[in-house]
Amino acid sequence: MELRPIGVLHTPWRSIADCPRNGRQPNPAPLCTAVVLPAFVEGLRSIEGFSHLIMVYWMDQVKTPELSFTPPFDTEVRGIFATRSPRRPNPIGLSVVAFEGLEGGDTLKVRYLDCIDGTPLLDIKPYLKSTDCEPDSSMGWLEQHATRRR
Amino acid sequence: MELRPIGVLHTPWRSIADCPRNGRQPNPAPLCTAVVLPAFVEGLRSIEGFSHLIMVYWMDQVKTPELSFTPPFDTEVRGIFATRSPRRPNPIGLSVVAFEGLEGGDTLKVRYLDCIDGTPLLDIKPYLKSTDCEPDSSMGWLEQHATRRR
Repeated sequence: MELRPIGVLHTPWRSIADCPRNGRQPNPAPLCTAVVLPAFVEGLRSIEGFSHLIMVYWMDQVKTPELSFTPPFDTEVRGIFATRSPRRPNPIGLSVVAFEGLEGGDTLKVRYLDCIDGTPLLDIKPYLKSTDCEPDSSMGWLEQHATRRR
Repeated sequence: MELRPIGVLHTPWRSIADCPRNGRQPNPAPLCTAVVLPAFVEGLRSIEGFSHLIMVYWMDQVKTPELSFTPPFDTEVRGIFATRSPRRPNPIGLSVVAFEGLEGGDTLKVRYLDCIDGTPLLDIKPYLKSTDCEPDSSMGWLEQHATRRR
């Protein structure tokens, strides 16, 4: 189970402390980029036309995992799998981003990333509303803490 | 960038050829399970109450990656990052699943998995409609091929 970067993410955030709670929190959401390594550019064929993508990345700056913790805005202990905290057993991050076009053949312009500048990119998947969109879903203990500002 | 399984996924599908095109294609969608290893069960605290989860897994049966190919239902060559094909540079799979409860403290009952029985589980994330749901998204070249049967 060995990973290799397919590119790198560029965001305005230089440290974990700078990062927003999620990519939709900053208003307006800044433009970020995903630069794909030359060896993988062929994989971008036909990516135009998708309005949203799923970026999968390796949160390499994250400290040791923590299986449960009390979130800063909460009073109860929550399990890591009931949160989107980066301190996961496998520090794989995932963001649904708005895709605003390709530049120079290898650079994707996106909004709603929330990771540190320089984060290694592992995968890009097209966002499919047929399988990825659940508007009637309920968010458990996070329901009361939801933020979505644009 | 080293991964470790946090559990294992159980589905009715024994080979890649058996797997549905996506987890929402079978009608009715069969009940599947995610069994979390004892060392990681603490991470499930407060997971009840989420109606949907994102399962992240390692598609260990997948052959060598292919950066572009012509999908079976298509006539044009598409890049891997414009498809959800498993033959990715990093074979990380992702499914938005309906969560139907915990059993025995370590087993999550879910629907809409599309991977092979025995697939190693890497992460469980709560599905958050505030950041993961994009009902107005467009699906590029896949728009004409969408399937969502329930």
